[in-house]
Amino acid sequence: MIKAQNLLAGVWEDNPKATTFQSVNPKTKKPLKIHFQEASDTQVDEAVTQAATIFDSYAETSLEKRIEFLKAIQKELETVRSEILQIYQEESALPEGRAQGEFDRTLGQIQLFVELLEAGSFVQATIHTTGPDLRKMLHPIGPVGVFGASNFPLAFSTAGGDTISALAAGCPVIVKAHPYHAGTSALVAETIHNALISCGLPAEVFSHLNGTSHRVGMKLVCHPSLKGVGFTGSFAGGKALYDLAQSREEPIPVFAEMGSVNPVFISEKRLAKDQTLSETLAQSIALGAGQFCTNPGIVLFCDPQGKSNLVEHVSSHLNLMKLPPMVHAQIEKNYLAQLEKLSQNKALQSLLKSELSTAAVGLVSGKELMNHMNLTDEVFGPFSLFVQCHSVEEMNAIAEKISGQLTATILAEKEEYPNLEPLIQKLKNKVGRLLFQGVPTGVAVTQAMQHGGPYPAATDGRFTSVGTDAIYRWLRPIAFQDCPNQLLPKALQNENPLSLIRAIDGKPTRKAL
Amino acid sequence: MIKAQNLLAGVWEDNPKATTFQSVNPKTKKPLKIHFQEASDTQVDEAVTQAATIFDSYAETSLEKRIEFLKAIQKELETVRSEILQIYQEESALPEGRAQGEFDRTLGQIQLFVELLEAGSFVQATIHTTGPDLRKMLHPIGPVGVFGASNFPLAFSTAGGDTISALAAGCPVIVKAHPYHAGTSALVAETIHNALISCGLPAEVFSHLNGTSHRVGMKLVCHPSLKGVGFTGSFAGGKALYDLAQSREEPIPVFAEMGSVNPVFISEKRLAKDQTLSETLAQSIALGAGQFCTNPGIVLFCDPQGKSNLVEHVSSHLNLMKLPPMVHAQIEKNYLAQLEKLSQNKALQSLLKSELSTAAVGLVSGKELMNHMNLTDEVFGPFSLFVQCHSVEEMNAIAEKISGQLTATILAEKEEYPNLEPLIQKLKNKVGRLLFQGVPTGVAVTQAMQHGGPYPAATDGRFTSVGTDAIYRWLRPIAFQDCPNQLLPKALQNENPLSLIRAIDGKPTRKAL
Repeated sequence: MIKAQNLLAGVWEDNPKATTFQSVNPKTKKPLKIHFQEASDTQVDEAVTQAATIFDSYAETSLEKRIEFLKAIQKELETVRSEILQIYQEESALPEGRAQGEFDRTLGQIQLFVELLEAGSFVQATIHTTGPDLRKMLHPIGPVGVFGASNFPLAFSTAGGDTISALAAGCPVIVKAHPYHAGTSALVAETIHNALISCGLPAEVFSHLNGTSHRVGMKLVCHPSLKGVGFTGSFAGGKALYDLAQSREEPIPVFAEMGSVNPVFISEKRLAKDQTLSETLAQSIALGAGQFCTNPGIVLFCDPQGKSNLVEHVSSHLNLMKLPPMVHAQIEKNYLAQLEKLSQNKALQSLLKSELSTAAVGLVSGKELMNHMNLTDEVFGPFSLFVQCHSVEEMNAIAEKISGQLTATILAEKEEYPNLEPLIQKLKNKVGRLLFQGVPTGVAVTQAMQHGGPYPAATDGRFTSVGTDAIYRWLRPIAFQDCPNQLLPKALQNENPLSLIRAIDGKPTRKAL
Repeated sequence: MIKAQNLLAGVWEDNPKATTFQSVNPKTKKPLKIHFQEASDTQVDEAVTQAATIFDSYAETSLEKRIEFLKAIQKELETVRSEILQIYQEESALPEGRAQGEFDRTLGQIQLFVELLEAGSFVQATIHTTGPDLRKMLHPIGPVGVFGASNFPLAFSTAGGDTISALAAGCPVIVKAHPYHAGTSALVAETIHNALISCGLPAEVFSHLNGTSHRVGMKLVCHPSLKGVGFTGSFAGGKALYDLAQSREEPIPVFAEMGSVNPVFISEKRLAKDQTLSETLAQSIALGAGQFCTNPGIVLFCDPQGKSNLVEHVSSHLNLMKLPPMVHAQIEKNYLAQLEKLSQNKALQSLLKSELSTAAVGLVSGKELMNHMNLTDEVFGPFSLFVQCHSVEEMNAIAEKISGQLTATILAEKEEYPNLEPLIQKLKNKVGRLLFQGVPTGVAVTQAMQHGGPYPAATDGRFTSVGTDAIYRWLRPIAFQDCPNQLLPKALQNENPLSLIRAIDGKPTRKAL
């Protein structure tokens, strides 16, 4: 059963006096039955304080124990799979296929962290034997706050990459549930709680807070015992949390992945040659009703003569697509308001709206875009602005002016590559991921993924929120100098009892000392 | 010859209208001859703008070229070794042995980065071949600003760890020289400039700015093209730069290592047994006239009966030592003012001042310290506060309350270790380095070193400013998806032309694909 209460260090604490709220079915616009209780300041404090109290003990748990815990989360999730899929669809209006895909992705993400813990070498054990005996490894930073993301009720929310990477690192987690899918979040929270109990781990390792007001999140971020924050969402939201965290007496890192317009650059020859381009782009634009942080918000195509019908073709494809509503009426309202504003923007040559959905595409010349760089601001939803460029040089100039992005995509023919080198060079400085085929939507969860990018795409482009490297956000090095072997963490002991790959005097090895 | 001008992208630009200042010999209190020109706002802008212009080209230099560059810096430094040692001593009053030691340490640090570049694997090439072809590696972040440190005119200044790690990473560097050793800094700057020229690298890679006012540093940190900052110094200075960098339109990382009191915990048995303890501590306290960020500012000893004469013995040793003056009259003035204030603090049982120097030690009970935690604030200079504790539990309670530190040291006998586990556990959360022998002064430059710690010891405890891992402050990952082999950086190409250790589908290997 979905709990309306907050989960505080193992207890679903009922607060009859709490303000309550309901999540809403975006299709019917009707509120669901459950009245979720907003967390009080005292409850936020309780969650973080308990997490801090248990931190040392959880940080010292063996990798085996954490593996057992992550596997138990997978198992518990499977147990309530159908319940989760049902409430997921009610709260998000996303179709069943997407719900199932995201559920499986969430399980898969957990599996990757299981494998990371099994390999164990992520602790980066480093030993130097000449001079003083120095042995360094990564250690968890402390309790972490995670904000659920509106657009990914599972994979970027309660048991998503932020939570799982922090738990794998050895950090207790306090989730601030996204109110748009409070029910999904509460169900998932219960699976994590059950997993803790089934493994004999302290319940204080995980808490789950409800809230529609900014107050709950702000109180969480400002708690002196919190040591880090994970967030996926809007620039305004992420930047506000970041600034708040920097204003604390002890500033803490906020890893906010704040979205991006993910420019796609199409060369003249590719434009002429690729017959499937408009359909591929239309599908990417419409995916998840445009609510992907890697949505291609800007498509620049090299069309010196202005002869291409790319925009019209993309629009035709979009015209045939039925899209679900956006995950919340407010998000859709914001989106439609931005479209309305664009329709009055004289810099645009055209704005083609779809018939069966809210999807739309705009067209602007490269020259006009350069004069109105605010047109490169994100329009969150199934919209893309097409930019007709007269030359590669014009593309280069736009790339130079564009702000930090999660991704950029270059679609070109082999013989054009030499001419595109300046563009590639410029884009390297702007993005976390650079694609040469396909579309930016679809973020593979592997060690080689970089999901994050230079500001303002993310608050810290040195880290990723997708893939196993996401764990490094929650770890910091500690060096032990001349430490007796029995007092060292196992990862650093002479015998290498965990059989890790360690750097000994600069050489990677599994050998004992 | 020592230049009075600012070095701007290869040109020692004379500005006859500039405000000037002189560095001062701390022994004679007399100003040296050279009138250094304060950098103007235009000059700061010029330095960063030129660095940004050249960034792409420098970022793409081969590892071989950067090795050649670093070796050329070593060679150029050797050429002017005697001149540097002379001005170093005039400006810092530190003795010749220290000057030589720091010079050699600086060369040694450069050598370690040469070896890091030779191995090459620090770029962390990661390849995933199933699903989309994803290849990730680290890429330099952009122009970096480095602030010289007053207490290490060579090893933590112009060609110190911050500058060399950034240059090794592929980032252009703009140094804001510390005005206390402006002459030393200018000479070293010239060696870096000469090394660039001798290697045929663009002169814009390195600039050097003078300034006594905060204006120059503030202008540098606020420049929109600057992407990161390295700083070693006071909490006030580091925190001000950090806050400034966070207030920019694009916040940038500031790696400020802001010092610490480096608590030393001495067990009851070690106290009773160790006959050399007081001398070892006295030498550590007096080292470099107490101007080490790892100076043991607080020494807690377990002495339930209050019978130990540790403080008196340390004081006796200090009484025999002649110390150089501190590196600047103002620093010494601040230090003496803090001592004066302590002498009026009724919580202290005693304050023993030395006869031949400004060194001093204080004594306070653990109970009083708990009531006056501001006594754990850093007193920068040859001072240490000794804390008589009645029990291990009292030590634990103090460890719990103490703020983030660069180091902590536990000196105990083997049979006491089980009893000390809670203390070790608490200290892990507070420090970057935990020692079990010796004293915290002396920071080995190896891959296993962690110099940095939880706030307020440093602004970002996830990174180190000493050792080869310092390079990771200036790098961020970029993932290439489905990128044609010839367009990939060499580190990621199929053939593995750089023979790096790469993670391919999770396994480290030097094999080609």
